[in-house]
Amino acid sequence: MESLEKVLTAIRTVDIEWIKKAGKYLDTLAMPPGALGDINSIAAKLCGIQRTLKPSTEKKVLALCAADHGVVDQGVSKYPQITGAIVNTALSGGAAINSFCEQAHCELKVIDCGLVSPPSGEELMDLSIADGTNDFSQGPAMRDAQCLKALDNGIKYGEYLSRHYDLVGLGEMGIGNTSSASALAAVFLGVSVSDVTGPGTGVSGDALNHKIAVIEQAIKVNSPDKNNALDVLAKVGGFEIATMTGLILGLAAASTPVVLDGFISSAAALAAMEVKPECMDFCFAGHQSAEPGHRLVLDYLKLTPVVKMDMRLGEGTGAVLAMNSIQVAANIMNNMFTLDEALKLP
Amino acid sequence: MESLEKVLTAIRTVDIEWIKKAGKYLDTLAMPPGALGDINSIAAKLCGIQRTLKPSTEKKVLALCAADHGVVDQGVSKYPQITGAIVNTALSGGAAINSFCEQAHCELKVIDCGLVSPPSGEELMDLSIADGTNDFSQGPAMRDAQCLKALDNGIKYGEYLSRHYDLVGLGEMGIGNTSSASALAAVFLGVSVSDVTGPGTGVSGDALNHKIAVIEQAIKVNSPDKNNALDVLAKVGGFEIATMTGLILGLAAASTPVVLDGFISSAAALAAMEVKPECMDFCFAGHQSAEPGHRLVLDYLKLTPVVKMDMRLGEGTGAVLAMNSIQVAANIMNNMFTLDEALKLP
Repeated sequence: MESLEKVLTAIRTVDIEWIKKAGKYLDTLAMPPGALGDINSIAAKLCGIQRTLKPSTEKKVLALCAADHGVVDQGVSKYPQITGAIVNTALSGGAAINSFCEQAHCELKVIDCGLVSPPSGEELMDLSIADGTNDFSQGPAMRDAQCLKALDNGIKYGEYLSRHYDLVGLGEMGIGNTSSASALAAVFLGVSVSDVTGPGTGVSGDALNHKIAVIEQAIKVNSPDKNNALDVLAKVGGFEIATMTGLILGLAAASTPVVLDGFISSAAALAAMEVKPECMDFCFAGHQSAEPGHRLVLDYLKLTPVVKMDMRLGEGTGAVLAMNSIQVAANIMNNMFTLDEALKLP
Repeated sequence: MESLEKVLTAIRTVDIEWIKKAGKYLDTLAMPPGALGDINSIAAKLCGIQRTLKPSTEKKVLALCAADHGVVDQGVSKYPQITGAIVNTALSGGAAINSFCEQAHCELKVIDCGLVSPPSGEELMDLSIADGTNDFSQGPAMRDAQCLKALDNGIKYGEYLSRHYDLVGLGEMGIGNTSSASALAAVFLGVSVSDVTGPGTGVSGDALNHKIAVIEQAIKVNSPDKNNALDVLAKVGGFEIATMTGLILGLAAASTPVVLDGFISSAAALAAMEVKPECMDFCFAGHQSAEPGHRLVLDYLKLTPVVKMDMRLGEGTGAVLAMNSIQVAANIMNNMFTLDEALKLP
């Protein structure tokens, strides 16, 4: 797997010296030290990633990765495999994510990573591996070669995006993908499925217990090796999740800041972290989702969420909303006067 | 006080029917019910304020109210009465608030409500009452007539802003004004000064204890009547705080949504709520400040903060950052497809 090996070599740690320099510079600005709280931390992290005191976040894009999941046959979601219809809504401008992108002046790229019924039209990027994964409660979600291909797609697309954008958000659409994310979280964190399984699109009570049982069965049937991220991703992951894992690796290799969204994209980050822990230095946690497993995953990733508004939609909504705060952090570094400059004003 | 009487009559409650209609409409959109968490609540509140299902937040402005405080002579702040220099930084584009406004596409209006040394230049709006308040630890901060004039200024300027903008944020600059806000909060909430007094620009230890003692003395010396908001404002308030109280009343009377910032503007809201509780229906809490008294005040105002990023700068930074989320909420109502529309897409 040439592109994977290449990025694993290419990913550096962020430069701690730039983070320190940024912290010192922030303390000279015309405000009490640390007064902007998390905005200060974001600013310093951006400087570490981009190796500058004048970070750029003007050109923003959301990579929305979509795929279907065979496990939906087990009734883990309130909806059937209609991800294609949801994707069509985004392509037509009427999904929630379109409203978020419009506000944040963020471009939207919609990517078919493996839809059962992809809508037609040129605006849907075709990186499809197959028409949905297999039902992972009965065996592996995908073959190893498919998983590697999805990773490769993500890596290469990440390299492309890094040449054209300053800040890349990750979003997803995939009926059933909270089940996949819960399985990944349970395996990578070594916790019980019930600790990291929630309502997703809205299951509760018996239906939630059923969802937990299906995920437990999937882990039992597949016995994924938690020290082998590719094995875990192939057995209980999804095509959009593996593509996002590749995107994180490709973007980190190009020193481009990545904004995760909620539970699903954070599960993709778990796999990326297992492969190359350093890539987390390039990631921001866009928001803290209402999905109960998300907090545990963010703690494991050692990321602080930017937005805390109890959202649980996915699509990249948390990532794009967070871009506003990240851009403010960049503006602070670029535009603010130092206290000395302020006191010398006529 | 003609303008005050006029607005007290003019302020209606928001229309609960519009909030209900908005909630029902949100449930028909192409997403699981309630999936956008606080964004859903903001959208419904906006609809109640503007009495529409298609709210507007395009034209945004921050009203930055600045004044000096005589109590600074008692050493309650790390800085002397140099608010004019900080205001000058904002007028020159180099303050934190300029970076926030640029990001959110929000206009900035800087208002002299009572600076000791106002910078020259046409861009500073002159609504000055006097060159700073009196030291309220020795007697009233201002005369009743001055307080009424500041309220009147705010009410009239709020009426003006409501004719030109869809969404108005409140911000402030005023060395020493956390002391004034703590005094207001202690009186209106009926809690001890130490419960609502924090570092402000950065005092701690003995200096913080001294700040608390000065505020306690101010309340003892002045004996403000907590059931008479004008008495409390005049005795332990500030010119920028009374002007913000007027702005809230004037904007609420014109059914224009107001975004509060942190501890100081929330203290101004306490006075507005005491005068006319209904005006809180028109207010959003921009953020939850790191200043320890702020949470108690927001609970008392029954407002949920939009942004939680541990900021404690003031200037309107929390209000303006929150405008991004409020605009997203408006976009959702204006742009999203219903589930029915989405399923009928070709």
